[in-house]
Amino acid sequence: MSLLVVGTLAYDTIETPAGKADDVLGGAATYFSVAASYFGSVRLVGVIGNDFLAEDRALLEERGIDLGGLTIGDGPSFRWSGSYLDDLNVAETKATHLNVLDGYMPTVPDKFRDSNVVFLANSPPALQSHVLDQVSDNAFAVMDTMNLWIETARDDLLALLQRVNMLFCNDLEALAISGEDSLIAAGRKLLEMGPDTVLLKKGEHGAFLFHREFFYAIPAYPIERVVDPTGAGDSFAGGVVGYLASVGEITESQMRRAMLYGSVIASFNVEDFSLGRLRSLAREEIDARYNEMLRFTAHP
Amino acid sequence: MSLLVVGTLAYDTIETPAGKADDVLGGAATYFSVAASYFGSVRLVGVIGNDFLAEDRALLEERGIDLGGLTIGDGPSFRWSGSYLDDLNVAETKATHLNVLDGYMPTVPDKFRDSNVVFLANSPPALQSHVLDQVSDNAFAVMDTMNLWIETARDDLLALLQRVNMLFCNDLEALAISGEDSLIAAGRKLLEMGPDTVLLKKGEHGAFLFHREFFYAIPAYPIERVVDPTGAGDSFAGGVVGYLASVGEITESQMRRAMLYGSVIASFNVEDFSLGRLRSLAREEIDARYNEMLRFTAHP
Repeated sequence: MSLLVVGTLAYDTIETPAGKADDVLGGAATYFSVAASYFGSVRLVGVIGNDFLAEDRALLEERGIDLGGLTIGDGPSFRWSGSYLDDLNVAETKATHLNVLDGYMPTVPDKFRDSNVVFLANSPPALQSHVLDQVSDNAFAVMDTMNLWIETARDDLLALLQRVNMLFCNDLEALAISGEDSLIAAGRKLLEMGPDTVLLKKGEHGAFLFHREFFYAIPAYPIERVVDPTGAGDSFAGGVVGYLASVGEITESQMRRAMLYGSVIASFNVEDFSLGRLRSLAREEIDARYNEMLRFTAHP
Repeated sequence: MSLLVVGTLAYDTIETPAGKADDVLGGAATYFSVAASYFGSVRLVGVIGNDFLAEDRALLEERGIDLGGLTIGDGPSFRWSGSYLDDLNVAETKATHLNVLDGYMPTVPDKFRDSNVVFLANSPPALQSHVLDQVSDNAFAVMDTMNLWIETARDDLLALLQRVNMLFCNDLEALAISGEDSLIAAGRKLLEMGPDTVLLKKGEHGAFLFHREFFYAIPAYPIERVVDPTGAGDSFAGGVVGYLASVGEITESQMRRAMLYGSVIASFNVEDFSLGRLRSLAREEIDARYNEMLRFTAHP
């Protein structure tokens, strides 16, 4: 199935206990599309600035990502600066410069409108809805979000939830959207708010999958030393959705496999800054960790 | 195999978002022994005050717990008061009154000294060592601890670690003992400090089992509404160690099963204050949740 992602490409400045990286390639759509590219082709829609490096564009093209929906804005690329010095699980935003992202409304090129699976990376829900308006009603729609929109665009977000098949969110977002105070109650409540499937990301504690018909829980792939958690959620989603888009039918078994692949891809992502580790994985490395995940969670 | 537990019996006063309970039965050895009693007989060593209620003694006896090692001190029972109003995962201690616990050093009755499995519930490590001195060198020794001893009796704790087969600890304790800053690194480091097996308790996020030869991770049984987390760690340990004591040989498969049983028993425990839920479980209830755990974590 063809997979479309719409979201940000960015230059990030990041500080973690392992070090600092200045103005490195980032953005939700970047992490998602590179992660998903290990399972099949990816179509990308987003905006970059006129300072976007040729080598970063080449990195995406080498991963087979179709950049036919990339707009080059008049000005510098979106920039985000954050720190994980206090807590590796929570990014503290130091600065956000929207730059070319300011006022951007994505146009899905005609040749991308038949995409079977659409991932709406974190963006204002009105923008995400605008993307859904441009693709087939039959597309399998997946969305991510963030606390900012839960607080400032709640009505738009609730309307969008009714239109998507699958929601990715972290623990705090799940509690904030649902108004519940336990993750389990939140996951079940979110299923009543629209999506058939809710993927609750818990960082180093793994992930839950809530579906109308089943519940699935996995640990994170055990990493001794996290270098940079930036993009962990987006690369997890890229692994999950990329794998699902590569199979003929989205069944319970395939969703369970997808969760494990997502966890594996995210585990590589956090082992280096930016796309350092994620940009050049061998299929054997992915399969080896997938099989380790099976052993780590094997039944007695 | 015969199972001995040495630890506290207490009266707790607890405040949680779900309500308040005053002077209710608690204590690490209480939770552990009632949890373990669902898998086989339990021998208990500890001290109670002269105010210990006949009905609480009867509760333990009805669970088949051998109270032959119970000392009745001259004064009131140990009391602990705590609040989970800020965070259900972390108890904020409001008051601790040692009472009869002050200066208590446990004596293991002769008839308990042949125990095959010994659980040293959270106590000063010197006291825990004193217990090990009184049982067979061949006993399978399991210990729990807390941050207070890591900070105030580190040398005793490190010496004790060399003598035990299995360690239970939570995430903060694992980091504090090992000096590492990631749970995975901490678990591996702890294996170098003595025990063959480390059980890392992560509350609502499940548990990790680190063993010299394998790694195993499980989620917590999903509970929508936690009423009182007190005793969750001890009832988890009771389920794990009680199950292991009930099998002929402690193999990898049995340890994996034990983890699932521990998670199930702890899930019942947190559904009510004190021993409200844990005191009268039906075997069918336990098996039903065990089978649910298998489904929640089933491989694709």
